[in-house]
Amino acid sequence: MFEYKPFIRKANYYETDQMAIVHHSNYIRWMEEARVDLMDQIGFPLSRLEAEGIVIPVLMVEAEYKSMVKFDETVVIKITTEKYDGIRLYLNYEISNKETGQLRTLCKSGHCFLNDKGRPISLKKVCPEIHEKFVDTLELLK
Amino acid sequence: MFEYKPFIRKANYYETDQMAIVHHSNYIRWMEEARVDLMDQIGFPLSRLEAEGIVIPVLMVEAEYKSMVKFDETVVIKITTEKYDGIRLYLNYEISNKETGQLRTLCKSGHCFLNDKGRPISLKKVCPEIHEKFVDTLELLK
Amino acid sequence: MFEYKPFIRKANYYETDQMAIVHHSNYIRWMEEARVDLMDQIGFPLSRLEAEGIVIPVLMVEAEYKSMVKFDETVVIKITTEKYDGIRLYLNYEISNKETGQLRTLCKSGHCFLNDKGRPISLKKVCPEIHEKFVDTLELLK
Amino acid sequence: MFEYKPFIRKANYYETDQMAIVHHSNYIRWMEEARVDLMDQIGFPLSRLEAEGIVIPVLMVEAEYKSMVKFDETVVIKITTEKYDGIRLYLNYEISNKETGQLRTLCKSGHCFLNDKGRPISLKKVCPEIHEKFVDTLELLK
Repeated sequence: MFEYKPFIRKANYYETDQMAIVHHSNYIRWMEEARVDLMDQIGFPLSRLEAEGIVIPVLMVEAEYKSMVKFDETVVIKITTEKYDGIRLYLNYEISNKETGQLRTLCKSGHCFLNDKGRPISLKKVCPEIHEKFVDTLELLK
Repeated sequence: MFEYKPFIRKANYYETDQMAIVHHSNYIRWMEEARVDLMDQIGFPLSRLEAEGIVIPVLMVEAEYKSMVKFDETVVIKITTEKYDGIRLYLNYEISNKETGQLRTLCKSGHCFLNDKGRPISLKKVCPEIHEKFVDTLELLK
Repeated sequence: MFEYKPFIRKANYYETDQMAIVHHSNYIRWMEEARVDLMDQIGFPLSRLEAEGIVIPVLMVEAEYKSMVKFDETVVIKITTEKYDGIRLYLNYEISNKETGQLRTLCKSGHCFLNDKGRPISLKKVCPEIHEKFVDTLELLK
Repeated sequence: MFEYKPFIRKANYYETDQMAIVHHSNYIRWMEEARVDLMDQIGFPLSRLEAEGIVIPVLMVEAEYKSMVKFDETVVIKITTEKYDGIRLYLNYEISNKETGQLRTLCKSGHCFLNDKGRPISLKKVCPEIHEKFVDTLELLK
């Protein structure tokens, strides 16, 4: 059975700004790293999907900054599923300090699925295999 | 009287990703550029505020992607005020193509004000001069 | 006759790091901005070249940091041609403070030309029109 | 005895550009990641040095691009010492594909050491403990 492991990463020096904290824009990139890692864990790496002509663009993002990440800090990024219906996918991200568990940022991203012509598709109809896997695994992340 | 000029900038090559569009994280940075420019226009450059010990951290951001920006495209970023009460500041951003006016992204950012000890302050109490200017100019951006 | 105008830009907040200076990696991106701008000035925008199937990848970069750029500082990036022979292009960049003229960074980039199959081409043979223009204008930047 | 482990990391989606390869500026950042990791391995994390008032700015960088890194590719970044004399530090970086060993990029960075007043220092004189460790470990990376 699928067992999700939250994504772990360190804050890089080049990600800090002159407030001596990680610049707020980087969390949007960290979300993507955690999402790519989730797809790897599910068994449908983004690179494989793109090779098959399926792109998963970002429709929206949100981030709520609770406390600041500093250089060299290790954070855990835990994804949970808000919604997946075969056409839209909404994920929540909880970014926290690995040592203390202190909450850093709450994020959210929304996605649809496009074919190689850039047309929105129903993953449920076009790729039932991936869809089933998504339903199974994303259900566990609720 | 204050007359706001929306911020204009071109999409850089290094801001594209392998979908051949501007990577979605960059809009969060563009918001900041437009915000910094707004502060310049108001007459309180961020660098001056920071020199006076006032920092304006980001509490939250949101972005809703409506259509994609391509390399070399020129966009207009227009800021409007959602709320300003001396303690919190919420801004809306409308990013659109300069030629066609087509809407690209709707964004939002929320801020508070910190003193040089990192403590939240009421700009209204601590810096009435800036506060008054903010009230006057941000009112015009509603 | 072609008259080259050096590229001017401000340092963004998100480009600073916790040393409170622009992170050294960003100058590599600024080089690209200045190069793209040069191509626009010459009359062969990169976007047009890419549309015609010609890509100008980067073979090498160098940067020597002389003094630091701070947030909100305006810099002038002046390009000069080191070498252009139709197959390879080497450019030098001098980044300096706009107000004082103080030198910030000396950079260099090297390029070749690829067709839409990713094969190196001689611009001289494949696109004599662009080549002639390059020879004329780049000569002036020596 | 100190045994150096080269730094390993994956290419992120947001690091690609519209040529569908990692943008060349990112290798400059990867160098930093590998350098920070080296300092951790040596036992003098950059964050500890900065806490003690020692900053290691970048004087120069060079990168020679041999072949392209794609999204999701895992690279190995191996550092070797070119020179260390207590005042200046020059490092070489070999970035290669983890699976095939194919060379991707050759890089170099040069550094000096500053105290908390921003003055250049001789690490040999000011921090003999760190200096000795550097001599010992960097010697092994030749």
